Parts: sequence; structure tokens; C-alpha cells
Amino acid sequence: MSVRGMSFASFSSVAAGLIELSRWCYERGWTPATSGNFSARLSEDTFAITASGRPKGALGQSDIVVVNAEGRLTGPSAGRPSAETALHCQLYRRSSAIGAVAHTHSRAATVLSRRCAHEGYVTLAGYEVAKALSGVATHDRAVLLPVFVNTQDIQKLAEDVEAFMSAHPPVHGYLIAGHGLYTWGSDIADTIQHIEALEFMLDCALLEGRIS
Amino acid sequence: MSVRGMSFASFSSVAAGLIELSRWCYERGWTPATSGNFSARLSEDTFAITASGRPKGALGQSDIVVVNAEGRLTGPSAGRPSAETALHCQLYRRSSAIGAVAHTHSRAATVLSRRCAHEGYVTLAGYEVAKALSGVATHDRAVLLPVFVNTQDIQKLAEDVEAFMSAHPPVHGYLIAGHGLYTWGSDIADTIQHIEALEFMLDCALLEGRIS
Amino acid sequence: MSVRGMSFASFSSVAAGLIELSRWCYERGWTPATSGNFSARLSEDTFAITASGRPKGALGQSDIVVVNAEGRLTGPSAGRPSAETALHCQLYRRSSAIGAVAHTHSRAATVLSRRCAHEGYVTLAGYEVAKALSGVATHDRAVLLPVFVNTQDIQKLAEDVEAFMSAHPPVHGYLIAGHGLYTWGSDIADTIQHIEALEFMLDCALLEGRIS
Amino acid sequence: MSVRGMSFASFSSVAAGLIELSRWCYERGWTPATSGNFSARLSEDTFAITASGRPKGALGQSDIVVVNAEGRLTGPSAGRPSAETALHCQLYRRSSAIGAVAHTHSRAATVLSRRCAHEGYVTLAGYEVAKALSGVATHDRAVLLPVFVNTQDIQKLAEDVEAFMSAHPPVHGYLIAGHGLYTWGSDIADTIQHIEALEFMLDCALLEGRIS
Repeated sequence: MSVRGMSFASFSSVAAGLIELSRWCYERGWTPATSGNFSARLSEDTFAITASGRPKGALGQSDIVVVNAEGRLTGPSAGRPSAETALHCQLYRRSSAIGAVAHTHSRAATVLSRRCAHEGYVTLAGYEVAKALSGVATHDRAVLLPVFVNTQDIQKLAEDVEAFMSAHPPVHGYLIAGHGLYTWGSDIADTIQHIEALEFMLDCALLEGRIS
Repeated sequence: MSVRGMSFASFSSVAAGLIELSRWCYERGWTPATSGNFSARLSEDTFAITASGRPKGALGQSDIVVVNAEGRLTGPSAGRPSAETALHCQLYRRSSAIGAVAHTHSRAATVLSRRCAHEGYVTLAGYEVAKALSGVATHDRAVLLPVFVNTQDIQKLAEDVEAFMSAHPPVHGYLIAGHGLYTWGSDIADTIQHIEALEFMLDCALLEGRIS
Repeated sequence: MSVRGMSFASFSSVAAGLIELSRWCYERGWTPATSGNFSARLSEDTFAITASGRPKGALGQSDIVVVNAEGRLTGPSAGRPSAETALHCQLYRRSSAIGAVAHTHSRAATVLSRRCAHEGYVTLAGYEVAKALSGVATHDRAVLLPVFVNTQDIQKLAEDVEAFMSAHPPVHGYLIAGHGLYTWGSDIADTIQHIEALEFMLDCALLEGRIS
Repeated sequence: MSVRGMSFASFSSVAAGLIELSRWCYERGWTPATSGNFSARLSEDTFAITASGRPKGALGQSDIVVVNAEGRLTGPSAGRPSAETALHCQLYRRSSAIGAVAHTHSRAATVLSRRCAHEGYVTLAGYEVAKALSGVATHDRAVLLPVFVNTQDIQKLAEDVEAFMSAHPPVHGYLIAGHGLYTWGSDIADTIQHIEALEFMLDCALLEGRIS
């Protein structure tokens, strides 16, 4: 996705997509107790993101705010952007191909990220569903999700993620220990597919009782 | 929440909130076979509470009764208050900041409370979702849930809870072994958030197969 | 429930109750692939029962037939009664207090009945939810479910159940190994409560990984 | 089912059945992230099949295409048939009694097929629900599901399945390691029953922690 010269989606349709994505995740138990946050690109340097502390199963348009690439509120919107806005902005700044970002708090992601925090990554290998991830053409390709230590210093966490990504091959998502999954895609539909594929493989890994 | 001088919610809107909370818990499997009970403050010393023995997925306004701080039926309402009314009243008497109380019977709370009955507490540590609890600002803060031995002598149980709370720092909830979770909040919405966060962490602890 | 002189429910309202009970169980995953069967008393010696081999999530009135105490089709109804009708009739003949019988095929009942087939019973002890069973006033009362060896000779199985019941104190249900749960109550609502309480305790026992 | 001389279902009713079957599987979590594919016989040598890469919870008629016995697009339909069309055609060519084929990606099938890939089969024995499979009259009959090694060479996989079936007694389905379940039936309703029975037994085997 090249952002230059393209006509971007209007705020209201993007907000509707984020509201629906939030509800869809909430119904699957992936955003309990106001956890989770979701965003989508509006233009090269503006992004719609869920406001802080709202119940994800019942958002309205006033729960979606607009921020710039540094995460500061912009435009006419009011409200407080998600506390983890810096993690979304790190991804958008890194790649113009990223059109949406999702952070879910599933039971599987929480448990496996804690179990693998010491190793520093979860490897999902041999699953046919991996092919649902962009650019993955065979089950033979292992999917590696780095696990970051949790912290309330989100700016520091964003720098850790940026440093990891600068030093390693591309990944499809990452975990924060005891906290959940971040994944992204070219748009909201692509991001839903990534969430669904990664959460499925995390569930399987949890059922298998072992991860590499 | 200071109760003096404030205008309290009308009975019918509070009852509607309790009916919806009961249904929401039932749909998640947390109040099987008429188990569970829910209440909310109507005034400084009157409380709406679910009647005894009704199916929690299908309550009507006649299934909500009004009791005073000693748990005795008051006002025009008819019916038998929940058998565990004394546990609700202990909390309301203890703190005027408590506006609603919920008792759920989930599988996770039942299993973990049995497993940890000997130690006397379940500790939930390192979960980001802990931040959904009032006054918790970081995942580093361990959430301790005391586990009380189950008994049919509810008055005695209420005294045990009161004695524990008088001797220890504040908690966000407690478990009764083989029986379930009690939690509370400033109002029904706050209590839902506490239920959701605690049940999520209990599910994770169960999946991890160990609790500290 | 004394059946003499009472006015019995009409067939159509009883059939509607069985259709709803079947659908309720199907939605919980307790009657997969046309498994499960349900009945209710119409009079002292006639009973409405689900027909054989129908999908339990989508029954209509023509899927409910009427049988006598020996399980033979009676009245104007057409169709083939459930293959396990003899197990329902054994219970109705044994006690006029039984107004409805349910047979579910949950994963928990299937797995635990296989695991405990050698011992011959599953004991559910220390669960508060046991109080939802008729006549149980405290969690201290252990709930014993006998486990019968599975067989396609339903007449023989009915005789085994009858012999067990004649020789032992009353039970609230029984299991057939690899097959599922039978439970009953004074009417359909009472039976739903028994299903819900027993399935909850079986789920907990499965999660605990041990049963006595 | 003899196909000669019979009047076949119209495309639109068959497509509606496949759309509903896809949605039913998606709601149970058995076709995450566009995985899974479904087909039904239209005539002796034409078959309706889901198109490649569409979300299985929200298909429309344009997501169903028509192929011949060699898997090549036929008739007026446009679109790309499922990447696994050759596995469907192998079954239809093998037996005119097969009227529908389903491929699901459940967590249980994924996990158990990986665990048993070395042995080469999963055996499901002693389950009453086995009687829901065509031609199975007793729980005593063990259900054997062969497990094939996963590959992106679908033509080769189809040949492996054909070779296995030519050399062994009939089976009701098969697994592909880390990938999922294939099963079939005389029509869509029969296939749904087979999916439901096999997924139930796979869930039980997973809960039991042992298979074969």
C-alpha cells in the first residue's frame, strides 16, 4: 500500500470498521474488561484509534479518536487515545504498508507469553493455517512471535519493538508477556485474518502443552 | 461515593441493571442452575438484591427484592432475598464506597478455590488485566484473593470475611472453596469490569496449571 | 407429584417444552449428531418422547411421539420413539414423582464416564452447586453417579439400572460409559436444573483432573 | 446413491446449502481465517465447491463455483476453486455414493493429527456417538482416521489418499497433519452429521490426553 496520492477512507467508515473489529474480538473473549486497542490509517500521517478505557464490546463513534504519527490528538476529535498509542504509531511509522493494527488480550496469548517470556519468543511451526498470514505460502514456514517483557513505560516498549524489528527479519506480530498479542495488516480485513490465524495457532500450541 | 445528600437511582433502573448483569453472567456459564446472586445500593441503608432460587438467565423485576443493612426485607417488595444476603450486607456496611456486589459460580473459580483452600488464598500476579481493577496501576501489583472454607452458616461466613478484612489490606474480591467468587465496585458497571478481569485471570491461572 | 386425579398438561405444551429443552442442550454441545433424547409425563401411563435420530437443535412437534409405560407407541402419533425409550420408561415406572427425563451426551460426561467405568461410579463432592439438586441442602453431601457399561441391548441396560436402584439409596442421575448422562426431575424445569448442576460439576471434575 | 437418471438439485439450492454449512462450521471455530472448503455433487460429473480464500462465515453465491471431475472450472461460474479441489474430486470419482465433502480446521483435529502423524492414524474407540456415522451400528466398532503428512502438493496428496483407500477397508474421514479433517456423506445433511460426530470424538480424545 503506497499512501501517496491515494484517496483515504473517510473517518466515519474507518471508525465503523474499528467498532466492528472491537466487538468481534470482544465476543471471542479477546478484550476483557476494557482491554485491547485497535487502529487504522486515515492518511499518510493520521490514524483512527480506540479511546482509552472503553468497553470493547460496545463502542460508538465518539470512542474513536484521531492521532498523528507521534500519537498526539489531532483534528476535531476529543477524548484520550489508548494508553498504548505509541505501539501503534511505531508500526505505522515503520511501514507505509501497514493500514491497521490490533492488540488483543486472549487467554492463550496471555498464558503462552508468560510461559515463553524467558526464551523471548513463541514459535508456531507446521500449521497449515500459517498460510493465512501475508506472504506465507507453506505450512513449512515457522511463524516466530517475539515476546517482550511487560512494562507500563509504553515509550520504552515501543523503542524495544523498533530495535527488535530493525535487527531481525519481518514478523507478523509480537507478544507482550502476561499482556497479549499485537498484529497488523494492510487494512482491517487483512488484520482480522492475521488475528484469527495467530489466535488459532496459539490455542493449538496451548492445547499441545509444548511450544518450541 | 459519599451517600449523604446524593440522589439515588430509582428501584426500577437499578433492578433493570441487576437483571442485565445476571443475564450477562448466565450467558458466560457463571451462574448455573439458579446459582449466583447480585445486588446494588439504592440508598445509604437499602439495597436491591436478587431473590433466592431464580434462574439467573431469565429474571424479571419481581425477582429483585429490597433489603436493609441487616438483610431484612423492606419496602413493598415481596419474595425471599438470596440466601447469601448477609455476605452482601457485610460489604455495604463496611464501605459506603461499595455500590454493587456480585457473586459468580464459574468453573475456574470453583476449581481454583478448591485447589487453594488449604493455602487460604489465590495470587494472580503479572497480568496486565489487573489494571482493570480499581486503584491498580501496574501489572506488577499482585492480586490476592483470600479463599474461605465453604459453609451453610452464612452468618458465620460473613463474620469470617469481616474479620479478614479488618486485619488485612483491602482486596478486590474473595473466593469460597468449591463455591465461587465475590467481587464488588462503586456501581454495576464498575463491578462488571471487576468480574471480567478476575474471571479472566482465574481462567489464565487454571490454564497455567499452577498458581502461586 | 401424585398423578391420580391431577389434570395433566396437554400434549402440545409438553411437546413445546421438550423441543425447547432439546434445543437448549444442543446449543451447549450436549446432543451432537442427533444424540440425546428427552421425555415428559403426559399422564400416569403415557409419556411424550423425542423420536429416534432427529437433530436435537431443530425439532418440530412431529418429532415428539407418545408411548405407554412399556415404551410402545400409543395415541395418534406416528414415528419411531427413541432407541433408548426403555431407559425412560424404567424411571417413570419406578417413581410417579418423576415427570421428565433427559439424556445428554456432553464431552465431560463422555470422558469421565470412560475414565471411571472400572470403578463403577463418579463422585462429585464439595460443590456448592450440588444444592441445586432436589433434596440436597448442603455442599457437604457427596453426589454419586453410578457408571454403567455401555451396550446396544437397551432392555438389558434398563434392567441393570433397575437392579442398581433397587439395591442402593436414591441417586440424581447415572452415566453410561462413553455415552453420557441420564437425569430426571418432577417436571421439565426441575430436570433442566439437574442437567445444569450435574454438567457443571462434571466439567469441574474434568478440569481438576481427578475424581474420587 | 445412484447418479444415473436421477434429477439433481439445482445449483442455487446446493450453493445455499454449502453457504449454510460453511457458516455453521465457522461459528464453531472450525474454519478460521478463510480455511476450510466444502463441496456438493450437482450431477454425475459436476460439483459445486467453495472458492479459494473467502471467509467461511460470510459466503455468498458468487463464492461457490462449479468444477468437473478433474477439478476444472465448468459452466458459467467465475472465480478460483478451492486450492484443495483435487481432494474433493478424488472422493467423488471414487464413489458415486458420495454427495458432499467437507474439510474443517478445528483445534482438536489440528492438535491430534500432529500428535499422531508418526503413527499414521487416530483411533476413536468406545464412543456411542460413533453410531452417527453411516453403517456403524454399535459403539464397539472402532473408528479409524488415517493421518496423512501435510504437503502443498495437493495432487500428490490426492494420490496418497487414493492409494490408501484402494488398499484399506472404507473409512469415514481422514486427517492431514497440522491441517484438519476431511469427511463426506451422501448429501450435505449426512455430511454435517459426520462432521459433528467426528469433531465430538476428537474433542473427547483430546480431553482424555491419549489416543489409539
